[in-house]
Amino acid sequence: MKIVIVGGVAGGASAAARARRLAEEAEIVMVERGSDPSFANCGMPYYIGGTIEDRSKLLVTSVERLENRYRLDVRVRQSVESIDREAMTVTIKNLSTGERYEESYDKLLLAPGAAPIRPPLPGIDSPRVYTLRNLDDADRIHAAAEKASHAVIIGGGFIGIEMAENLLHRGLNTTLVELGNQILGPWDAEMVVPLAELLTERGLQLRLGAAAEAFAPTRDGISVKLTSGDTLSADFVVLAIGVKPETSLATAAGLVVGERGGIRVNCHMQTNDANIYAVGDAVEVTDFVSGKPVQIPLAGPANRQGRIAADHMFGRDSQYRGTQGTSIIGAFGKIAAMTGLSEKMCQRLGIGCEKIYLHPAHHAGYYPGAEQMSLKLLFDPTSGKLLGGQAIGGLGVDKRIDVLAIALQAGMTVFDLEEAELAYAPQFGSAKDPINMAGFIAAGVVRVDHPIVHSHQLDAVAGRVTLIDVRTPSEFSEGTIDGAVNIPLDELRGRLDELSKQQPVVAFCKVGQRGYMATRLLRQHGFAASNLSGGYTTWRQIQSAR
Amino acid sequence: MKIVIVGGVAGGASAAARARRLAEEAEIVMVERGSDPSFANCGMPYYIGGTIEDRSKLLVTSVERLENRYRLDVRVRQSVESIDREAMTVTIKNLSTGERYEESYDKLLLAPGAAPIRPPLPGIDSPRVYTLRNLDDADRIHAAAEKASHAVIIGGGFIGIEMAENLLHRGLNTTLVELGNQILGPWDAEMVVPLAELLTERGLQLRLGAAAEAFAPTRDGISVKLTSGDTLSADFVVLAIGVKPETSLATAAGLVVGERGGIRVNCHMQTNDANIYAVGDAVEVTDFVSGKPVQIPLAGPANRQGRIAADHMFGRDSQYRGTQGTSIIGAFGKIAAMTGLSEKMCQRLGIGCEKIYLHPAHHAGYYPGAEQMSLKLLFDPTSGKLLGGQAIGGLGVDKRIDVLAIALQAGMTVFDLEEAELAYAPQFGSAKDPINMAGFIAAGVVRVDHPIVHSHQLDAVAGRVTLIDVRTPSEFSEGTIDGAVNIPLDELRGRLDELSKQQPVVAFCKVGQRGYMATRLLRQHGFAASNLSGGYTTWRQIQSAR
Repeated sequence: MKIVIVGGVAGGASAAARARRLAEEAEIVMVERGSDPSFANCGMPYYIGGTIEDRSKLLVTSVERLENRYRLDVRVRQSVESIDREAMTVTIKNLSTGERYEESYDKLLLAPGAAPIRPPLPGIDSPRVYTLRNLDDADRIHAAAEKASHAVIIGGGFIGIEMAENLLHRGLNTTLVELGNQILGPWDAEMVVPLAELLTERGLQLRLGAAAEAFAPTRDGISVKLTSGDTLSADFVVLAIGVKPETSLATAAGLVVGERGGIRVNCHMQTNDANIYAVGDAVEVTDFVSGKPVQIPLAGPANRQGRIAADHMFGRDSQYRGTQGTSIIGAFGKIAAMTGLSEKMCQRLGIGCEKIYLHPAHHAGYYPGAEQMSLKLLFDPTSGKLLGGQAIGGLGVDKRIDVLAIALQAGMTVFDLEEAELAYAPQFGSAKDPINMAGFIAAGVVRVDHPIVHSHQLDAVAGRVTLIDVRTPSEFSEGTIDGAVNIPLDELRGRLDELSKQQPVVAFCKVGQRGYMATRLLRQHGFAASNLSGGYTTWRQIQSAR
Repeated sequence: MKIVIVGGVAGGASAAARARRLAEEAEIVMVERGSDPSFANCGMPYYIGGTIEDRSKLLVTSVERLENRYRLDVRVRQSVESIDREAMTVTIKNLSTGERYEESYDKLLLAPGAAPIRPPLPGIDSPRVYTLRNLDDADRIHAAAEKASHAVIIGGGFIGIEMAENLLHRGLNTTLVELGNQILGPWDAEMVVPLAELLTERGLQLRLGAAAEAFAPTRDGISVKLTSGDTLSADFVVLAIGVKPETSLATAAGLVVGERGGIRVNCHMQTNDANIYAVGDAVEVTDFVSGKPVQIPLAGPANRQGRIAADHMFGRDSQYRGTQGTSIIGAFGKIAAMTGLSEKMCQRLGIGCEKIYLHPAHHAGYYPGAEQMSLKLLFDPTSGKLLGGQAIGGLGVDKRIDVLAIALQAGMTVFDLEEAELAYAPQFGSAKDPINMAGFIAAGVVRVDHPIVHSHQLDAVAGRVTLIDVRTPSEFSEGTIDGAVNIPLDELRGRLDELSKQQPVVAFCKVGQRGYMATRLLRQHGFAASNLSGGYTTWRQIQSAR
């Protein structure tokens, strides 16, 4: 068996190692366009920012090791230019010498990745406009950052935000321009407000709703003209508006590309040519929750896909179950993470969902150092089946999203979260963990024990509901929602006569817990009461996200 | 509906709050023997150690709040002395006045907890021998520790170890005496070796395999005579050898107590009297994995049981699914956590299990600050169904055990762990998370791609297998397993002629990864090879645990 692998990073490298473990006799040729196979691409922003000081740390493995340990035939600085499916050969170009040659294959694996998008804007070819894909790019930006004072980042996705943190960390005056009305597009807008606020606090100039329309050289830098009419000056620009699957090789060979732009594969990562597999950022995958095709460039899935492709080449029935989109980003200690569908994805796909918000501490409040997080859970309103989760906060955010990721994989419901038995000691969690709390709240909603309203619905019912703030007078005096009257929870039973049963009552508190208690109390006294999910904290996040 | 609740901490307090949310009109009487309902008992060691400086932090809620917010009739320093099941009344004693009176109930909830065991040893009634159950106890030990220089702790369970950390943290010369051959009995011995080593490094004098047999006053302290013949001197002793469910009230009333010593309840937390429920440390529960009755005193389960009992009192079908025994302990930054069955529990119960070990970093190795953990996974050898997991290490241990706890709850297999999609950025995990790695390794074992042997089996096959250390010569020279020959993995293919096919080969490396690669390589070249699970690291932990 002779396997040719196009691309030596995540998916390609995993496939190669797996293939060797399965077949000592196989001939495995790995063709990598760059100089480094299997480098740590997710670490590049931190190398640029100086957190990873030693560049060699990014070289996960060496060509020598791949050759000695895995007996791979590694060909760096070479590029596969075309595929002859009938002859089962590829044409390879040696990028150092320009020489071209043919290589036969029994099985071909495409793991070419995705390329940063570079729209055809005036001046975009300036050497001061960088994209970040490989170590050469990282070296260039690293060198530029060392002598720069001003940087502009275009795009507020993962790379844009990670670059922002790292350039701020280096002390650069940094502006981030994002076309959308929020950073981190996959998240629901209100869930990334705390991160945007923190980045701004740390000095980031955040320009939402703006795009670059032209770049021009200045005396010693570059200017960026925005669609808003403003012009920014910088020493360099990092363009991070997204990536596009590398499909030219595949399409030229007649392989099918899906509706989302990636190479189409079956559950074994096989293209429409049974001898050609494709994995990683170049392929279109099935969303695990919605069952719809999606294009999600993530390292974990790429690695697992590589493994599955290699398995299948050697007759194993390994199948890829789809991608949940579990992802995480941190900056200055603030962490945003998600798994499954967001609310806006549900809306786009026409999937009915209910949501709840909560703002628990990451461990017992009585133990020093508890950090608050905001959690949003999406679930089927009738069955309670989980659809997705998002969290933002500090410590412990990654843990809760990982727990939800497994729950989602298992097809669990909000009722299962009520019953989750997680590790509790006061340094690590709470006897009622945030995950249990999310389950309690969501299950209460599904069971109609706990009717909720959402902040965005308040406007529509203004004047037709009694809005009561059940926090303390001192909390109330520091700011509340327009039109709210203050009846502290602990006084509510004695002041029911102040409320009319003719009108629905919406209760709220800081995070939703006292509002829940108030809702239960009021409903049993005959009021049509509901609780504002996530309380004043969520309300404010949603106001900020507007 | 009139509910009387015996005990106002975890389970009792949860039941009371839930009952009020379900029934505004119910009369709810909470009888608590101590002075504080709902105090943070898991925080007491950290108050004694000074990490929690403010004692009031341990008072989770006040009697006043319980009365105002939940309209509970809270009676502290009162004790339920007997139950008249026919009359449906309890006799309550006011511990301040000595007065006794009767109170009727429609539903009675027993949440009396478990009492520290005090064996009838000579001198054990000394005022210098403390147990830790409530805030009064914590205050006494806190006061004693402030003027003490030497302490002896009897018992190496949760409370013993937490007390050890905290007394060492206060600068006390501390000795811990444990009857067993390991600390933390529920864990498998080799999994707690790193914690025992760290505690020793931090100054703990650890006496395993010893018990106290007598206590005697000294001029200004107390002496502890051990079964080993030694005598220890200290200013005070903390007795933490375990707890015994408080069942006297229940048994006197003819309620059934189970084989493990706790009050027997059904899945609704009902005793054999349908009007009497019991929850928390006083009840016997079903082990979720084995289905067998167990006695596991944990705060999370107690809270959920309280909720379920209240639900059922009001006609809801809430059921307790059993306890998995998910638990965690930390000391000096070292964290041990587990969920499900341990290997020794499987052995005791006759449940066939396979195990694997791994020692992954808690996040990408190229990002600064990666901490190594040791993970042990237990699973059904044929189906791969998860049976339990244990981890010890630093950061990220709690996350992996929580993920495994959910996987166990969902009835997942090791194959599901292969496919887990967890949140990855280099600060938080790896593209192949420790959970994925555990899945890969265990699945390889179940599929017989990856035959393993265990350290304890090596003795039995000594001389009849070729043991090869596939680490580098420099790693080999720093210590290896007796009888091993060194063939570094990267040289193995070229040195196969040094090995005989007449004899099985066992390969090992530092943590098992290179050993796995060697095993695959050797098997395909016709050798009967297997890998030492967990490598030299596990081997050493097992030697230390002997």
